[in-house]
Amino acid sequence: MYRSHTCGELRLADNQKEVTLSGWVQTIRKFGSISFVDLRDRYGITQLLFSENHHPQLEANPLGREFVLQVKGIVNERSNKNPQLPTGDIEIAVSSFSILNKSAVPPFTIQDDTDGGDDLRMKYRYLDLRRNAVKKNLEIRYSVNRSARNYLHENNFMDIETPFLIKSTPEGARDFVVPSRMNAGQFYALPQSPQTFKQLLMVSGYDRYYQIVKCFRDEDLRADRQPEFTQIDCEMSFVEQEDILQMFEGLVKRIFKDVKNIDYTEIVQRMTWEEAMWNYGNDKPDIRFNMQVCNLKFPAHTFPTKESLSALIEGVAFPVFDNAETVVAIAVPGCSEYSRKQTDELTEWVKRPQIGMKGLAFIKCNADGSFKSSMDKFYSEEKLKAMAAAAGAKPGDLVLLLAGAEERTRKAISDLRLYLAQTLGLRKNDEFKLLWVIDFPLFEYDEEGNRWVARHHPFTSPKPDQIATMINNNPAIENAAEYLKHPYASIKANAYDMVLNGNEIGGGSIRIFQRELQEKMFAALGMDAEEQQHKFGFLLGAFEYGAPPHGGIAFGFDRLCALLGGSEGIRDFIAFPKNNSGRDVMLDAPSTIDDKQFEELQIKLNLK
Amino acid sequence: MYRSHTCGELRLADNQKEVTLSGWVQTIRKFGSISFVDLRDRYGITQLLFSENHHPQLEANPLGREFVLQVKGIVNERSNKNPQLPTGDIEIAVSSFSILNKSAVPPFTIQDDTDGGDDLRMKYRYLDLRRNAVKKNLEIRYSVNRSARNYLHENNFMDIETPFLIKSTPEGARDFVVPSRMNAGQFYALPQSPQTFKQLLMVSGYDRYYQIVKCFRDEDLRADRQPEFTQIDCEMSFVEQEDILQMFEGLVKRIFKDVKNIDYTEIVQRMTWEEAMWNYGNDKPDIRFNMQVCNLKFPAHTFPTKESLSALIEGVAFPVFDNAETVVAIAVPGCSEYSRKQTDELTEWVKRPQIGMKGLAFIKCNADGSFKSSMDKFYSEEKLKAMAAAAGAKPGDLVLLLAGAEERTRKAISDLRLYLAQTLGLRKNDEFKLLWVIDFPLFEYDEEGNRWVARHHPFTSPKPDQIATMINNNPAIENAAEYLKHPYASIKANAYDMVLNGNEIGGGSIRIFQRELQEKMFAALGMDAEEQQHKFGFLLGAFEYGAPPHGGIAFGFDRLCALLGGSEGIRDFIAFPKNNSGRDVMLDAPSTIDDKQFEELQIKLNLK
Repeated sequence: MYRSHTCGELRLADNQKEVTLSGWVQTIRKFGSISFVDLRDRYGITQLLFSENHHPQLEANPLGREFVLQVKGIVNERSNKNPQLPTGDIEIAVSSFSILNKSAVPPFTIQDDTDGGDDLRMKYRYLDLRRNAVKKNLEIRYSVNRSARNYLHENNFMDIETPFLIKSTPEGARDFVVPSRMNAGQFYALPQSPQTFKQLLMVSGYDRYYQIVKCFRDEDLRADRQPEFTQIDCEMSFVEQEDILQMFEGLVKRIFKDVKNIDYTEIVQRMTWEEAMWNYGNDKPDIRFNMQVCNLKFPAHTFPTKESLSALIEGVAFPVFDNAETVVAIAVPGCSEYSRKQTDELTEWVKRPQIGMKGLAFIKCNADGSFKSSMDKFYSEEKLKAMAAAAGAKPGDLVLLLAGAEERTRKAISDLRLYLAQTLGLRKNDEFKLLWVIDFPLFEYDEEGNRWVARHHPFTSPKPDQIATMINNNPAIENAAEYLKHPYASIKANAYDMVLNGNEIGGGSIRIFQRELQEKMFAALGMDAEEQQHKFGFLLGAFEYGAPPHGGIAFGFDRLCALLGGSEGIRDFIAFPKNNSGRDVMLDAPSTIDDKQFEELQIKLNLK
Repeated sequence: MYRSHTCGELRLADNQKEVTLSGWVQTIRKFGSISFVDLRDRYGITQLLFSENHHPQLEANPLGREFVLQVKGIVNERSNKNPQLPTGDIEIAVSSFSILNKSAVPPFTIQDDTDGGDDLRMKYRYLDLRRNAVKKNLEIRYSVNRSARNYLHENNFMDIETPFLIKSTPEGARDFVVPSRMNAGQFYALPQSPQTFKQLLMVSGYDRYYQIVKCFRDEDLRADRQPEFTQIDCEMSFVEQEDILQMFEGLVKRIFKDVKNIDYTEIVQRMTWEEAMWNYGNDKPDIRFNMQVCNLKFPAHTFPTKESLSALIEGVAFPVFDNAETVVAIAVPGCSEYSRKQTDELTEWVKRPQIGMKGLAFIKCNADGSFKSSMDKFYSEEKLKAMAAAAGAKPGDLVLLLAGAEERTRKAISDLRLYLAQTLGLRKNDEFKLLWVIDFPLFEYDEEGNRWVARHHPFTSPKPDQIATMINNNPAIENAAEYLKHPYASIKANAYDMVLNGNEIGGGSIRIFQRELQEKMFAALGMDAEEQQHKFGFLLGAFEYGAPPHGGIAFGFDRLCALLGGSEGIRDFIAFPKNNSGRDVMLDAPSTIDDKQFEELQIKLNLK
């Protein structure tokens, strides 16, 4: 028996017990011939006292950091208690010990503020994982996992495993493929998600399915994307959108409670995609703070129901606005006294290539009620006042305005809003605001191919009252310039995203469950009957035999854990992540394979 | 809202409630203008009564089996109650209904005794999954999953996900590989098990790890093997074999309780590998019944501690025994009156190529105390009596004897023992007997390569008192004929298998955690320093930095579920299994991939 107790377990109540502990040497402090050692394991730290009796043994075999020890001894009350540690009232008077394993000096310090750079930490991930900061993240991850499973179990969901070796049906993202040795010349694909399988399970009558499951996408890795990632994947039968929203805000609230001890009692806000784009320039707005976008000029065709404010900026010859497709503004609270240097810095910020604006206009709404603007030459104080009012500015606020092409400008104002909120401390790590974004467009227009692509995925249903529009119209776009007038352009999806603090943490939809509608959808995406049958014949077939109405959602598990851990980076919430080139630098994978493997798989390299 | 209740929920207490149900049409019975419909969902079946009011609607749109319906109506007490069904006291008087989806006539009947053959069932797996028999299996699977997670959680195990895209280190089984697009010319491998990762997690101090995880092996599929399969994978630090055995017999007992409501209170028997091979001819004996093997002649070098019984068969000129390496016997209870036809059939059975014996000898131990044998010509009644006694036969038993080459004969007697037990009804589906088999040999001898191979895997530790034997001896085998005299031949592994009813359901070991010993192990398996570094450098490196003593186990989740479901076939305990050629016939996978995919991956086919 290696231990009678863990290093986090002993208390004053255990005084005088004879115990055996095992763990790692965290620190060693010598006072003449006695030594204090902090012994660490997953559960905590216990102080050991080596008396002078052990001095010769320690001299002969000196201990070092990260050595693995087993000690026997007696629990004693400490004269010098440490109230920071749960075990701080006691120490172990060591009677005997043995070194179970030695340790070389680690290449970086095993501490919260490590001196290890990213590459070193990843190469020695097994040491990095010892650091408290990383350990806490994996504990959060496990507790989210546990909480989700408990909630879903209590709500009658069944964990059903779906296969990993499936069929390649590239749609959107690229598949990872696996050559089949037994079926030479053919390949499996790794699943981008268990989408079609969970739908088949609904056809099979399983009613409520879930899985916490690895998914795979062979994409060029942007920062903080991983080629393999984990989803909480769920599907329900006989549901409408409302049933799903309630079930899964319940899930996230339960996770808040179990993992963070937060009672999220407020109603989860809902916002249509159109409102989100209009008011935040973004389909996943951070609503921890306000600073909504004021649309001063915009292409009316995109938001046909919105009132135009362009009168506010018209009537003066200001080419920057006159020539722009879109003019938008935000009111930054309490920043009217920004210096010239500060507004110049903001201008530089929006001119960076990632943002791509030509410049930035501002209106300082001074505390005394006066206005000062970079556009004083063009606009009267009255006009400035009206613009500021439209942007919701109060005295003391700074209104920032951007002008340019529609999509880029909208993204820029959204980025600027987030950047300023970050600067002003409005994006608090310990504040959590959930939001449902609903009523997404079903289709996006692909200019290059002059065709429709599915905004969510090809299995998402249109709104019930728009099914007829979809069935009864030809998806072909005759006039590319007028694509917005095509009936398909206005079809809304029965889809929803869950947004947490400006991050999409989950998304899903009510699915198509009628063969005719599914075929129409595939056709709209440019798949002919033969391709439909080759790729998705099994699903179309399943819809012939009594498919129930169903819908579901998938949560990005890595991201959700990271946000709950107060981070936006997912990598340290994954035990063994890959770097931005998709490499595991610890394993040194991927790597070459043997000639024998090539031969058996009947493939060869064809390097460019 | 599609339903107010499920089809398994309503009782007499709900009488007169207005309810909405959704589900599938299981059966339709017409009595003139009224119809009874059994509506089915995952939770049960509820009887619907369509009155003559609905006759016109039903005439216009007739219902069929597997149609999806939504009905509104009133709960009524049934005049003709069905005590077989939990909902059998009530029926729904339908007030309105709609057909949510139609169904074509299924290609086989959705019933326990389906008329669908294996191929048809697999092609339409989504319909097959509707059958109660398959649904129950997946429910068992989920409940084993849930039970295991709860037990492991309560015992401080953490679920930590390990990567799926790892490095190919073929050792024993073949890896599935995944070409990397971003690292052209290089490949990931899919894990055969998370073995090295869980060991690294122990080095990282996670103390107790588990995962219910998919693993992959590209092997030629014997019946009832799958290229992807699931393990309950566990690892613990600071443990000896005894700690592991206790923890995991606790796990299996908990699963028995949660899933089958069986209180497995008896002590889990333990048996050394040597005892298992000696007494059962098999390293995973079924101990639900006795019928132990009597070793009448055997190569003394394999079992040096065993007493020889060869005097019992020597001294007469019986070439079948005299020329055989091994002679073994079992006493089949109560079969002394087997007819000539029956013993001939048994003889034919052992002569089949799968068994490969040349013949079968028998001794009938008649109830009157007399003996009758196929060897009467050679052995006196006294000799026969002594042999029968050695085999443990009682009056009324039939002793069967096999002779031949050691390994084949031992396997044959084991197979014969199981076959007869099956025939005699001694292998009961509802009886569960657990067994630990321990003290396996660490190495097996590979004749072809004249070298050692790891019996379990290269990370298994020898018994503590044999570590020195391993370190201090050269693994090279100088004299192939005398390999059994090499010190390595007698090293026992700190390994254990859990056996349930004659099936290995789990196996594991205490691991090597010292770099020197691990290097010696790799060297013994024929890996030079360079190859060790290339394949397992990360693990050897990790052992430098304070690796704790650790060990673990992995359970074959598919097999465990199947056995608990009373089956030895795993396929119907997997939602979407593959056939014996590794194909998913529903998806038609694997399949060809696009030219673009080949181009991006920079590989091409090289078909023989």
